Parts: sequence; C-alpha cells; structure tokens
Amino acid sequence: MAEEDRPPGQAFALWLTGLPAAGKTTVAGQIAQELRGMGLAVCVLDGDELRRGLNAGLGFSEPDRDESVRRAAEVARLVLDSGIIVITALISPFRSARRRAGEIVGADRFVEVFVDAPVEVCRERDPKGLYARALAGEMKGLTGIDAPYEAPSEPEIHLRTDRNTPGELAAHVVDYLRNHQRL
Amino acid sequence: MAEEDRPPGQAFALWLTGLPAAGKTTVAGQIAQELRGMGLAVCVLDGDELRRGLNAGLGFSEPDRDESVRRAAEVARLVLDSGIIVITALISPFRSARRRAGEIVGADRFVEVFVDAPVEVCRERDPKGLYARALAGEMKGLTGIDAPYEAPSEPEIHLRTDRNTPGELAAHVVDYLRNHQRL
Repeated sequence: MAEEDRPPGQAFALWLTGLPAAGKTTVAGQIAQELRGMGLAVCVLDGDELRRGLNAGLGFSEPDRDESVRRAAEVARLVLDSGIIVITALISPFRSARRRAGEIVGADRFVEVFVDAPVEVCRERDPKGLYARALAGEMKGLTGIDAPYEAPSEPEIHLRTDRNTPGELAAHVVDYLRNHQRL
Repeated sequence: MAEEDRPPGQAFALWLTGLPAAGKTTVAGQIAQELRGMGLAVCVLDGDELRRGLNAGLGFSEPDRDESVRRAAEVARLVLDSGIIVITALISPFRSARRRAGEIVGADRFVEVFVDAPVEVCRERDPKGLYARALAGEMKGLTGIDAPYEAPSEPEIHLRTDRNTPGELAAHVVDYLRNHQRL
C-alpha cells in the first residue's frame, strides 16, 4: 500500500522475544485484551500458530528460523499498514534476525519487548513439555537447551515474568505506551 | 490461537480474484474505507505488496503462484483469528488454489468475490503497463495473456468494474454483507 493510502493511526508492533515458556503468548494475550478494551484493533501473531500455517515446512535450522522471523515481520508490516496494532510472540532468538525484523517493520513502528525469565524457571514451567523432551534427547535444537538465545542488550521494554503477573506486566506495557505517546 | 481464545466478532475474508487491472486493489480500498467508516477493523492484503515482501523470491510459475496464494490465506487466517476483517486483492488465477485458500481460511469465513472486467478493458486500462510489456514480449506468464485465468464458476459476489464505479461496487458489497448477516 502506498504511503498516502495508509489509514490514519499510529500503529506499532510489540515484538515479544524470549525463551520457550518465558510467557510470551500469555503476556501477548493479556496486552491484546487491554488494548482491545480501549477499542483498538490488535492482531496477535503467535509463533506456534505461524509454525502450523504460514511457516509450515520451515524447521529449526538457523536459516529456517531467520526465514520464519522474516515472514512474521512482513506480515506485521502488512497489518500495520492497515492501521492495526501487532503483537508478535516469537522466540526470535537471534539479534541479527530481530534487527532485520525491525528494518522490515520500520524502526519507528518497532518496539522490542524482552519477555524474560531465568531458563531454570522456564524449564520448570514447561507447559508444552519441550524442555523435558530436549533434556531426554528426544528433541534437538531447543532454544535455551542446545540452541542459543541471544538476549536483547537494550530492549525497549523489559518484562520479568518470574517476578510479576501477566496482568501487572500488561498494565506496565500499556502505561509505557501511553507515556511514550504510542496510545 | 485456540478456539476459546478467539476474540468475539464475526470476522470474514473477502477474497477478491480477477485479471490484472480488473480493479481489485481499487475496489478493495473502497470496501475497506466503507467498513472502517462503520468502525470496523479491516486489513487489506494486496498482491503487489505481498510480492514485494512476504512472497519476495516467489515467481510466476504455477507452484510459486500456489505458494503465494497459500501464504496469503495463512495470513488471512491469522488476522481473522484476531477478529479483524480481511480483504485480499490477488489475481489468484487457479480454482484449485482458491479452493485451498477457502479451506485454510475456513469455509464459513471465506467470501469469494469475482472482480470482473473483459480482458480487452483490462488491457486498455493497464495502469502498470503489464499488458503492454507482455504483448511486446518483454514479460512472460501474464495472466490473461499467456497464462490462464480460471474465472470463478460460482462466486459469492460478482462485480463488474466495466459497468459500475468502485463506489457503487463497494456499496453493493456492504449491502450484501448486511443482508447476509455478516455485518
């Protein structure tokens, strides 16, 4: 869509990155609920959903991970161009891929959010049994076990899911967005 | 996103199909404007935009066209799952690919819209100079010239852009959606 055709509105993407089981999907859902409650249109792009559909066929190798992050960023861009707020919930483990995502989305519309919890806590939670499978050797390339996670060095927002509830974190994000004239 | 997490709302996808220069993008924009004027969230997925981003790297071969339609349908599904109306503007020339798109999006959420004009009219308009290039032999595989377009046999909505203005057509679509309890 050409620049001049863009509907008005300061849409932005909250790019949630973090370890498996850090709480990205939960926090994304909570933020989406808050923003929708304010009458805003919000689209959540969840890693698991992307993997089942758009990124089916892509695996866990580094180029495949990069391609899946690229596609998510391209989708985010399209949705933003329609004036809709985007929240992505993707491990997106590599700094370089997140940087590229920011370029695709547009620096002024990209808000990096680090959904942080110690790996021991994530391993303990393990709602999908991924860590258990990786530790049992039944699964390879799990981020945080045998694949690297490059934590953001300067995330715009840093959330600690081992210290605060999802509701508290969502409220914090909304406050931040308000204070920074995003809302 | 699990069924029970879906935000309320009867989101649906208007899947605009038609020849190059049939008016898909124009009509999509007009419908989007009408629906936004009613306070609804609408996301437009335009073929040209998709080609520049998400589908960069895909060409015009039949498998590549099918993959680009598949990806558009997967994106539509994700956006619909967030309760947002989707309007796609893609040539999507093959019946089989459109059928598959309908399956991905979900039959109850998929509305096929045939944006129809005689190929002579499209060739006359040719805003991007594609027909001229194809007829001069500078471009291969243009739908309507040397690649087939399989017109929908039973589109849910049939629009003739050589007979009505975009505004009239958008109003007709909105009326149709109202009469069919989509709005």
